[in-house]
Amino acid sequence: MAQKKISFYYKNICEDIIGSEHGISQSQLDDLAKKTGPAIEEVNRQRKAGIIPYRDLPYRKDYPKQVKEAARQIRGECENFVVLGIGGSALGNIALQTALNPYLYNIDSRQRKGPRLFVFDNVDPLQFGGFLDWIDGQLDKTIFNVISKSGQTAETAAQFLVIRQILMDRLGPEGYKQRIVATTNAGKGTMRAITSEAGFRSLEVPDGVGGRFSVLSPVGLLSAAVCGIDIDALLAGAAAMDKRVSETDFFANPAAVNAAIQRHYYQRGKRISVMMPYSYALKDLSDWYRQLWAESLGKRTDLDGRQVFVGPTPVKALGATDQHSQVQLYREGPNDKVFTFLQVDDFGRDVVMGDCPPSAPELGYLAGASMAKLLNAEKLATEYALVKDQRPCLTVLFDSICPETIGQFIYLYETTTSIAGLLLHINAYDQPAVELGKEATFALMGRPGYEQMADKIRPFTKQDSKFVI
Amino acid sequence: MAQKKISFYYKNICEDIIGSEHGISQSQLDDLAKKTGPAIEEVNRQRKAGIIPYRDLPYRKDYPKQVKEAARQIRGECENFVVLGIGGSALGNIALQTALNPYLYNIDSRQRKGPRLFVFDNVDPLQFGGFLDWIDGQLDKTIFNVISKSGQTAETAAQFLVIRQILMDRLGPEGYKQRIVATTNAGKGTMRAITSEAGFRSLEVPDGVGGRFSVLSPVGLLSAAVCGIDIDALLAGAAAMDKRVSETDFFANPAAVNAAIQRHYYQRGKRISVMMPYSYALKDLSDWYRQLWAESLGKRTDLDGRQVFVGPTPVKALGATDQHSQVQLYREGPNDKVFTFLQVDDFGRDVVMGDCPPSAPELGYLAGASMAKLLNAEKLATEYALVKDQRPCLTVLFDSICPETIGQFIYLYETTTSIAGLLLHINAYDQPAVELGKEATFALMGRPGYEQMADKIRPFTKQDSKFVI
Repeated sequence: MAQKKISFYYKNICEDIIGSEHGISQSQLDDLAKKTGPAIEEVNRQRKAGIIPYRDLPYRKDYPKQVKEAARQIRGECENFVVLGIGGSALGNIALQTALNPYLYNIDSRQRKGPRLFVFDNVDPLQFGGFLDWIDGQLDKTIFNVISKSGQTAETAAQFLVIRQILMDRLGPEGYKQRIVATTNAGKGTMRAITSEAGFRSLEVPDGVGGRFSVLSPVGLLSAAVCGIDIDALLAGAAAMDKRVSETDFFANPAAVNAAIQRHYYQRGKRISVMMPYSYALKDLSDWYRQLWAESLGKRTDLDGRQVFVGPTPVKALGATDQHSQVQLYREGPNDKVFTFLQVDDFGRDVVMGDCPPSAPELGYLAGASMAKLLNAEKLATEYALVKDQRPCLTVLFDSICPETIGQFIYLYETTTSIAGLLLHINAYDQPAVELGKEATFALMGRPGYEQMADKIRPFTKQDSKFVI
Repeated sequence: MAQKKISFYYKNICEDIIGSEHGISQSQLDDLAKKTGPAIEEVNRQRKAGIIPYRDLPYRKDYPKQVKEAARQIRGECENFVVLGIGGSALGNIALQTALNPYLYNIDSRQRKGPRLFVFDNVDPLQFGGFLDWIDGQLDKTIFNVISKSGQTAETAAQFLVIRQILMDRLGPEGYKQRIVATTNAGKGTMRAITSEAGFRSLEVPDGVGGRFSVLSPVGLLSAAVCGIDIDALLAGAAAMDKRVSETDFFANPAAVNAAIQRHYYQRGKRISVMMPYSYALKDLSDWYRQLWAESLGKRTDLDGRQVFVGPTPVKALGATDQHSQVQLYREGPNDKVFTFLQVDDFGRDVVMGDCPPSAPELGYLAGASMAKLLNAEKLATEYALVKDQRPCLTVLFDSICPETIGQFIYLYETTTSIAGLLLHINAYDQPAVELGKEATFALMGRPGYEQMADKIRPFTKQDSKFVI
């Protein structure tokens, strides 16, 4: 059987299809090829120089081995596996689970091949409190995987301090440590110190790999392996895509073509990039993409001595659902978006509609039809309606949804982001603007050393009744 | 006890806070008041003239009575309540459930006061198939609520034809009809004809109320009542807000001020409107808002003989989660967004952090702190960081999350949308651009009468291998 793959399809951005005002001509494509060539080579160079180590994750032998060994143990020890993390320590885990495990995984024990999975990426007292009410009484059947490179991320640290105390109170200072697995920096930092002191089992967050590029490391792989996902196949998919996105021939490199098209439209005023999977399973991949794209490309930069604010806004949508929510705007609102559909060729199962009621012959066209056929017809129909209104449309086509194709997709978009960062003249790997909010949180929580910041914030936090209705 | 309420806070769009380039001055506010006055009066006039009957839903006596009677029966007859609907027939139901019932409602039987609730708003074979695998064997403990004004919506009709056949096969041509409740047009249409023929129980979709304005009708109320939500309190909240949004004094009318500010920014290039609740429970209200805003305001229109594409793009985000995904872009990307935070004063419960591990004194500031305090500190901190970068921020403050405040929020945003529609010179109540995609779907599914359309689409649906990578 040939390996399942994904393809990138870009005809519906061409001027023959959507007209010359919004479409791209062959000579513009040739121009994009010329301008993007150096970026492809620079990314390849950075990769060889070890500057972007996320690119090597598909080839690491140590991580999958460690993860599979930990997963084997954990699967024997729990009925619930709970990830405590946020941002890059949560979105990849969620995306893999939604993509590769059944819709009712947590509800239907017959449909799952591992423990229930929960991923908490917030500090909401109602949400987390509701969870604590339920988990109470089965703590000895639950393992918590706290994921934080440093251990200082306030949300994850807060969740951890709640869980740690409950486990210590219930299972004693010795017993509790079997219930926590830490994924954190190998040699230093707050969570590493806690882990060494307490004797937790642990895995490593690789050096030099930012959270949003870490899903193919132990950060994203452990929960996947615990829940029965074939992580070797996932990594093999990423490695297969590696060859394609390293290709120096622009027109043979889907990451380069994707990045160049996205940048072309961004610079021509289409500042919104919509990703719309026609598949529930793929919906959280677009949430993962949303972080990757926004945090990597949303950057203040200096251009010829002028301060510039750069960054397309990623938007997640879901087909066919959002046809009844967003498509009115997508067609008749400003032509300020580029659309990327995710389409699945073979869902691997189907649901067939029954007979038509005698009183409703107008539904006859659906009788005996299948949901897979309808869903894909809706994708084509929506795309048709959009191109009729000169809106540019891209498609990532999945042969099927399996670890191999999901690995390909992740690696395609990570590399697309690297190339897009170069094309936009920004650093795709930092996130300087997140700092001020973190510091302001410390100040408001009374962390020592942040008293001056607290003084600065105070005038903004007091509600001024003149502006309250 | 004073009634719980929501307030609208708009100081952080003012020029004293975010500077004159992006802020609004007092004289501009006065100008907005002058320009918005006629729109307030026009909406009040339309409401009195019966043109926008969604405004009367809080005062209907018949609907709540019918819904509560149906809910009382249904609660005695099932352990699973399944809504089949899409768009406005799903988003309100989901929003009410997430807002007003526990996080683990479907998983923890001790935490729920009614049957499990599922809302299916797609035709995904993997998702729906996974659900069918689970529900099989408990069909006699399950009620399906098919919601469609006409009954011709392809996705809902498809789901219905699947479920109808399974129920007929399992429970016989007589037994199956007890398992379906239809919410549909009172007197005509496909689903009404099917309902009459089969003898299903039914409720009414009110005339003249579009899907996205229908959550306070039987469309949204039945699943809420079945799951134990106090719909009288919900409607009372909406009625309380009615007084405030009918106010002709601009500065006392939160819908008018909100609409005017949103329109002001839209026309000055801030085409993205982000709603970011700092509460998991409120997260699906922002998805409900996303349909309301996009489908109502995304419109092609003629302005002085020129064709104009109008419409802000609504974006949903979630605090604190998206601080680690979107805030980098929100601060350093283009200043093309207006932000609306939802903030909760009293969550009604809290979760307290435990002791700090001896090896990590740097986490001492969190020891003994509460999640509610941290979550609200994060909201203020993020807002502070945004206003420091001249980004306009609004807040809807909830005293607490309860049916009264949720009803107020829904009614506030519905009326805001009506006023914004007038300010943008568009019809907020139609959705003409959805039609072409529907027809194209019919054509691709082989519905008789759509053969010509099928011929037109064919060239677009064939993949051109030249553009595949």
